[in-house]
Parts: sequence; C-alpha cells; structure tokens
Amino acid sequence: MSYRAPVSEIRFLFDHVVGFDQVSATERFSDATPETVNAVLSEAGKLCEEVLSPLQRAGDLHPARLENGIVRTSPGFADGFRAIAEGGWIAIAADPEHGGMGLPMAMATAVNDMMSAACLSIQLAPLMTQGQIEALEHHASDAIKELYLPKLISGEWMGTMNLTEPQAGSDVGALITKAEPKGDGTYAITGQKIYISWGDNDFTENVCHLVLARLPDAVPGTKGISLFLVPKRIPNEQGVPGVANGLKVVSLEHKMGLHGSPTAVMQYDGATGWLVGAEHDGMRAMFTMMNNARLGVGVQGIGVAEGAYQHALAYAEGRKQGRTENNSITDHADVRRMLATMKADTFAARAIALANAVAIDMETATGHADWAARAALLTPITKAFGTETGIDVAELGVQVHGGMGFVEETGAAQYSRDVRVTAIYEGTNGIQSMDLVGRKLMDGGEAAYRLLDEMEADAEAARADLPDLAEPVWQACETLRETTEWMVTKGAQDRFAGSVPYLRGFARVLGAHFHLKAARADRAGKHERLAAFYIHRLLPEHVGLLTHARQGADDLYALSMDDLAA
Amino acid sequence: MSYRAPVSEIRFLFDHVVGFDQVSATERFSDATPETVNAVLSEAGKLCEEVLSPLQRAGDLHPARLENGIVRTSPGFADGFRAIAEGGWIAIAADPEHGGMGLPMAMATAVNDMMSAACLSIQLAPLMTQGQIEALEHHASDAIKELYLPKLISGEWMGTMNLTEPQAGSDVGALITKAEPKGDGTYAITGQKIYISWGDNDFTENVCHLVLARLPDAVPGTKGISLFLVPKRIPNEQGVPGVANGLKVVSLEHKMGLHGSPTAVMQYDGATGWLVGAEHDGMRAMFTMMNNARLGVGVQGIGVAEGAYQHALAYAEGRKQGRTENNSITDHADVRRMLATMKADTFAARAIALANAVAIDMETATGHADWAARAALLTPITKAFGTETGIDVAELGVQVHGGMGFVEETGAAQYSRDVRVTAIYEGTNGIQSMDLVGRKLMDGGEAAYRLLDEMEADAEAARADLPDLAEPVWQACETLRETTEWMVTKGAQDRFAGSVPYLRGFARVLGAHFHLKAARADRAGKHERLAAFYIHRLLPEHVGLLTHARQGADDLYALSMDDLAA
Repeated sequence: MSYRAPVSEIRFLFDHVVGFDQVSATERFSDATPETVNAVLSEAGKLCEEVLSPLQRAGDLHPARLENGIVRTSPGFADGFRAIAEGGWIAIAADPEHGGMGLPMAMATAVNDMMSAACLSIQLAPLMTQGQIEALEHHASDAIKELYLPKLISGEWMGTMNLTEPQAGSDVGALITKAEPKGDGTYAITGQKIYISWGDNDFTENVCHLVLARLPDAVPGTKGISLFLVPKRIPNEQGVPGVANGLKVVSLEHKMGLHGSPTAVMQYDGATGWLVGAEHDGMRAMFTMMNNARLGVGVQGIGVAEGAYQHALAYAEGRKQGRTENNSITDHADVRRMLATMKADTFAARAIALANAVAIDMETATGHADWAARAALLTPITKAFGTETGIDVAELGVQVHGGMGFVEETGAAQYSRDVRVTAIYEGTNGIQSMDLVGRKLMDGGEAAYRLLDEMEADAEAARADLPDLAEPVWQACETLRETTEWMVTKGAQDRFAGSVPYLRGFARVLGAHFHLKAARADRAGKHERLAAFYIHRLLPEHVGLLTHARQGADDLYALSMDDLAA
Repeated sequence: MSYRAPVSEIRFLFDHVVGFDQVSATERFSDATPETVNAVLSEAGKLCEEVLSPLQRAGDLHPARLENGIVRTSPGFADGFRAIAEGGWIAIAADPEHGGMGLPMAMATAVNDMMSAACLSIQLAPLMTQGQIEALEHHASDAIKELYLPKLISGEWMGTMNLTEPQAGSDVGALITKAEPKGDGTYAITGQKIYISWGDNDFTENVCHLVLARLPDAVPGTKGISLFLVPKRIPNEQGVPGVANGLKVVSLEHKMGLHGSPTAVMQYDGATGWLVGAEHDGMRAMFTMMNNARLGVGVQGIGVAEGAYQHALAYAEGRKQGRTENNSITDHADVRRMLATMKADTFAARAIALANAVAIDMETATGHADWAARAALLTPITKAFGTETGIDVAELGVQVHGGMGFVEETGAAQYSRDVRVTAIYEGTNGIQSMDLVGRKLMDGGEAAYRLLDEMEADAEAARADLPDLAEPVWQACETLRETTEWMVTKGAQDRFAGSVPYLRGFARVLGAHFHLKAARADRAGKHERLAAFYIHRLLPEHVGLLTHARQGADDLYALSMDDLAA
C-alpha cells in the first residue's frame, strides 16, 4: 500500500491543539493564512504520495555506493530530489531574500514529517541542506550568503554537516581537524570526518560542507572550534562551480538501514574553506543549527511512525483470519491495542513537535525570551520522544505483521531499520536528556514550570466536562512538577542518572496534555476516544519513569565496572 | 570481541535463585550433581566460545540460499552443527534409551542460552530438532521412535516443525494441508507450509518434517488436525535414507535477520507421511512440543541479550572519550544506566527461564500437578519476557555503540536484527499473553496465587535484613495479586485487552522476586547492588503496566476502525 499524507490530522493539530493561530496572527507570518496552510500541505502531500513514496524501497534494495571515488545514488533519487527542490520544499522557512518561502517553521515541520514518512533516505538530503541554510543565514558574511544561499535554497547545490571524527563523537570538543589561514582570507582544512550524511551525490552540481575545525592558536575543547564552509568545487563569483577542492569521499558506511542515504567518511587534505561566524566561535553557530536540526530529526521519527502505522493498518485490515471470513485481525483485542498505541503515540509526538515549531515561530516573530525558552525546553523532548516513537511504532508495525513483519518484502522491517539511527544522530537521545536536565533546567526550572502551569490550568478547565480524563492529567502534571523540583535542586550526576526516564516521563505527560486539548475540541468524537485510550493506558507509564528519574546517582555508581563484568 | 560463556552466573542462579537443588535431589535426576553441572556448562561454554561464536557474522554476511532446488548453508555451519551434535548438545534432555543424556531441562536450557548467544542462526537447528525429539518421545509409535530418535539425537538427521500456512498463522485451525490414507498405514501429504525454519540443509543426510494436516474426514478447526512425520528421504528399516519423498523447498525468505537460518516455503505433493499420535489429535502433540519450544525461544532471547550485552560492554570499556585519556564512556551516568539495565534485565529473564525449566524437571521427576501448573504458568512469561529482553537489550547495545551501532561491521545491529523474530515465531508474544490470561488463569488463578504466596513469603523473610528491597517487592506482589484477581473475574475480551501489559507486569514483579533472592544470597555483594538497581529503577514500571492491564475492553473497542483510519 502507499502512503497517504495526513493533511487533515495536521490541520486539526494546527487549529485546535498547538496554537498555530498565534503564529498566523503575527505580522511576520501574516502570510500563513488557513488557505496557504491548506495549499502547502496538500501540494507537499501530493509530492510525498506520488513521487517520494515509490523511492522508499528502491533506496533500500539499491543502496548508494562508491564507484571509483564517485557516489552513485539509488535509482530515482535524483528525480526525487529535483522534485523536492522544484516544489520549494527545501526552503519553506528560509528567508525570501534568497529565494525561501519565509513561512513558519511549523509548516516546514509538517512538510518534513510527510516527506520522512514517504522516504526517509531522500528526506535527509533537504533536511541537511535546511540546517546549512539556517547556519549561513545567521552566521555567514553577506558575500557568502549571496553566493551560496540561492544555490542551496533552489536545490542546485546540497549542504552537509561535518562534526564527528573517529575520536570525537558526543564529545565534539575532542576534534582535531585543522584549519590553517592561507593569508588570503581563506583557510586550508585538513582532517577526517565520519558519519557525513549525504556526503556526496551524483545529481547536484556542488556539495557544500560545513566543517568544524581548529585554528592553530585554538584552545583545547569546544571553545577552540571554528566553523568553515568547504565546497566540493570552488565557485567563482557568479556561482559557477570550478576546480575540485581538496576533499574526497573515502568510503560509505554499510548500515543497518537508511541505505538510500550515502553516509560518508570524508577526507580533507588542505581543502579551501571560508570562515562562518567568528574565529573560535564555531560551537555557537553549530548550536543554532543543531537546535532546529534536532527538531527536524525528531520529526523524522514521527514521519516514520506515521508511515509504519499506515502500512500496518492496511496489512491488518486485509488480513482475514479468525472465525468468520469477513473478520480481519483488527478484531483481536491485542491487535487493536497495538494499532491504537501506534496512533495515540504518533499523535502525542506530533503535537509536541508542532508545539515546538510554534514556539520557534513565536520567538522569531516576537523576539520574546519566553518563547525562546519554550522552544529550547521542547527541542530535546521532541528529538528524543519523536525518534523513540518512530522506533517503537515501527516495532509494533513489524509485530502487527506477524511472520510477514520479519520478511523484507513487506517493507515493515525497513521502517524499523531506517528509523533506528534517528535516536543516535544529531546528538544521541542520551545527550538530549542531558541537555534537558542540564542546560534546559539551568533557569531553575522556570520554563518547565511555566509550561506546567499552562498544562495544569488546562486540566483544571477540563475537569467539569471530562473529569475522567482531566484528573489523571492533572495528577501526572503534579508528579512531573515534583520530579522537576527534585531535578533542579540536585547536582549534575544525580540529574544525569535519571535524565532519560525524566525526559520520557516529561513527554508522556506533555502528550497527555495535548490529547486532552484534542478531546476538548472534539467532544464525543474520535479524538476524545483516542485521548481516553492514551490517558488511561499509556500515560500511567509516567509513574515508573519519574520514580526511576528521582533515584539519584549513588546507587548507580555503587554498581562498579567489576560488578557489571560479564 | 568474542563471547564468553557466563558459566559462573548460571551456576549462581542454579545454586541460589531457582532451586536447582530440588531437581538434583530427585531420583530421576540424581546424576545432575554439581560436578556434572560444572562439566556440562564448561564444556558447552567452550564450544560456544570457540566454535559457534565465529559463525555469527559469517551467517549474516553469507545467508543460506537456494540454488537449483538445493539449500546451500552459510560457510562453517556444517562444521558448527557437527560440533554441536558430537558434543551431545542436541539431546541433553532426551531419553538415554535412544542416545540422549537424560539430564534436566534446566541444564539443556542453560546450554541453549549459551549457544543462542554465540550464534542464534545455528542454534535454531538443534532447537528445532529438540522439539521434534520431544514430540516423538511422547507421541510416536515405538517403531518410529526406534527408527528416528537415534538419528535425530546423534544429529545425523535434522528435525523441523511445519505448522503455518499462508492463510493460517496464529489461527492454526485454518490450515488446509491434506493427508490421505494410502491404505498401507502411511498417508499422502499435500499442501504448502511457510516459515519453516531450517526447512532444508546441505549437511545432514536426512531432514524430518513434522507436519500438521487434515484427514479427509476431519472436522473444521483445531479438532480436525493430525500430526505426521514426513522425511525428506524415505529411510529403510535400518535407517538408511532412500528415495526422495514428494516434497521440496520452493523458496527461502529474505529476512531482516537470522540470515544463517534458511526459512523455507515447503511444498508437499503427495509426500509419504507417518501418523504421530492419534488421528485428529495433532494439536495435543503440538502443544506438548510447543510448550518446551516456547521455553526454548524465550531462552534464545536471553542468550542474545547476553551476547549483545557483552559486545556493548567491551565496546564501551574501550571507547575512550571525555575529559581525561583514561576515562571510558562507562563513566557517563547514562551509559552506566544502559549497561546496568541490560545486565539486570538479562538476569531477571534468565532466572524466570531457569525457574520454568526447574518446574518442568520437577514435573518430570515427581509427576506432581502443582509443578505442571507452575511450568505451564511460567512458559508464556518466559517466552514473551525473554524475547522482549533480547530485543530491548540488543537495542540498548546499539545505543551504547552510538554511531557505530548503526554500522553493520560492529555486529551490534545484527543482534538486534536477528533476535527480532523471536517475539513472533513459536506463537507471537500477543498469543503468549492470551495463553497466560486465558488458558493459564483458567484454574481461577490458583497457580498464580501459589507463586505469589511464595514471592510474598520471601519478601516478608527479607524484610528484616533488606527492608529497602523487600518492601517494594512485597508491594508489587500485592498489586500483581490484585490485578490477577481482576483478571480471573473478567470475561475473555476484558482480559485480552490487557493481556500484554499484564504479562510484562507479571514478569517485572517476578524478576524482582528473583533479584531479591540473589541479594539475600550475596549480601553486600554485586548481586545485592544489581538487585537494588533493578528494584528501585526497573520494577516501578509494573505500576503503569498493571494499571493498563486493568482497563478492560470497552474503551478499546470504543475506538472504531474508522477512528483508527489514517
């Protein structure tokens, strides 16, 4: 079966759950009228259904490969990328000055969701480019912006991010790639970078690498890192790519999934690079870019969850088994439980991601620090819970298929294999949880409490009409508040010892809040019934998670590495 | 890194946690002295470490394939199977009359655990054969036993199970394969069977298929099913395989994992079969065999969990990253949490499986119905929780590896792909949970309450010395008791609506019981510290699970298929 873009579900979320009306009420995003939203979602949905969805299996069966130093992409991917670019979908949220649509991040997020569902491997290419566009918009010189942004926005060129080195993964500060000033304003970049998604391709006329490296006078650690733009072919002032730069793809990884996306080991041998932002200030630029890339990766998980759900639902409805000829396996309680779990969790994760995007848009439109703090707080939650939801829903999709789930021909297994990396790249989910309980609670919990105040006020307001749903949500908010209070009074080790269950517990409760909002907007309708399922059956998970979160570090480190020896 | 058999861990479980002393105290198993246990575990462990472990990656890279109708197995698998056979490891628990060792199921279970960890694909071959040996021992005529059992036990021949058909998966009663009496005491078998693990190979001189089929006068459903033994080549009375039987491998599945194990579509065209058990009584024979096969599959999950854990631990200890050169990522709280979770859950699942095997042994040795009920109760829990633990631990293993986890060369991803099927085959985990709340609670909960009485008595006894561990275990037992009481008073639909969370909640609490036992036997030692980790951080999961379990079916079916439409 093929993917159907969930346009009406996303519109319901915009209109009734995540407060998109606030965004379109701002001057900055006054173009984002309901008509524009409709047109964009429908048009992008059509692309996903008709052009991108058929690429999904082709990418898996015919992985990108390296032939005599040239990356050969999967069949159809060149046309797929061109269709994305021609629709303008790379740069929905980019600055109109250089060809972007200038629309809200919430809309870009919805489109990324749909593209991820249709074909994750191809969607990663525009996602990487979006991150680069954003970094350049915020940190590059005008000359670089004018030369590069139109090409990246139009999809003539593609962008990548180069952070990781063999000895420097989550610990970015350990990187050793060198940048030597050449005296003409450019730098010679030398070093090896790994895990470079879409490190090269055979269909764009240039590939632009954003590379983290160290200047000769750099201090150790993250404070000595600078950011450079290093094109595959050096463009002249008119933007015509010329001589090849001193870089190459050494190899492509043989991965568990996402075969259509070439993951490269890149070698830089004195390649010419241009500084982006100030010297030694590369991490700041990376963080701007990474925050939205983390939202983007969370959304990849949500998109795959949607794709896997639709796939499993279609299989289950077509699987006639049981007492009578007309019955499908959806009549079985446990199959129904699996399908409802997939649907309810995808809804919760999507609401969180869209609320995150709305906060970014409100920050952009109003410049208000509270919106910035809200966006910052939600980003690690969106990334970790979105990707976990993708993994869990794809797993359930395999299980719904029974034996057919383990057989590759059905495509159920591919969702599960492809999405697995989203919990790892762009900062592992462990790193996200450290970001949440470390950096994002450093305000003494203020942003979290402000969100909890809203959640509790909503639950209070729902009490009269929906007591069975409102009461457990209010109680869960209280438990989350107490756990947050515990977190902000503890040292780093105690917080880190419980950060992963805390983040998931937070997401569980926040998801209930959004389900409750949906129930209020759709009384006696399907959203109320789905909210009841989520709140009565899935929300209770938060009790165990938040209990775990409050255990502290002592017990954990009491278990020595000798104790853990196999 | 290579696998190291956890011999001392298993011995600790035998001696202090699962009551193996009761087994060796019986006359039937008086040979199972501590010396014999030691010798068997050490010898089998050596085989796993030295011979089987190197086959793991070979099977993945070079899948079994079908060439001109002949199954070509992965490199080294022929020698691996021969080594297993020559060690006697196929038939540890089989009757000595036909060449088996006659040792307890608990020992066979421990050996299966180690073989699964070393190489799941090859281990599935002896596991299938063990199931066939058991079915024949219990249900076949003496003539069949004498002809077939020595060959299966020696590993000269291999055994398979043929249940599933395209239209008959979990719903076995829908199968249509026909068996026509030929008038000479044999039957002509015609039909197609799918998902036949090790359906053929190129290294045993015969392959014996146990096939479920319908006689011409059979009633519909499971009551009309009979069981037949259908050899690939028909043996003469001396056990020399002669002419080819009317069956063939049509194709092999292209699977997500377990590539070394050929999963066949089998076609039977009037193949000659011999009845096993009475006519129309095939399901009874299948159930005998399936119960222990389900234990065996649960143990596959536990073995893979151990393998994945060792793999991740070695990687983490070697991964130097962070502030100082000497530190590895194991210093990070969240990596420590992941490793401890893997270790604690593997311990819990292994204790449950070994207690299950001990119950089977006590049933065999004493014939007491209480032991039979205990074994029956624990079997679906072992199967579902063991395989989920395999899946979850392998997932965590990928995560511990970070980016390297998604790259196939490390082997972390293979554990995750291989083990995925264990939650599906031999009855999906959803089917296991229906078996638990349906069939296994049909005694009004008697067997469950008897187990809970023991668990609570143990927790009571531990209160004085280990109050921080004993109290939460006792409380959790009470919650499980209340949920069990709820279950036994409800109708099938209400029970089935919560059966999966109930089973997992049961396993969580039972795991805590065994951890508490271990803590009492190892005061101030590593088992007490691991028990503290499990009881304080993982046990709380039962609250959400058992709350979910008690929700009933109304809410679930209130969500219509229209509500669930994508």
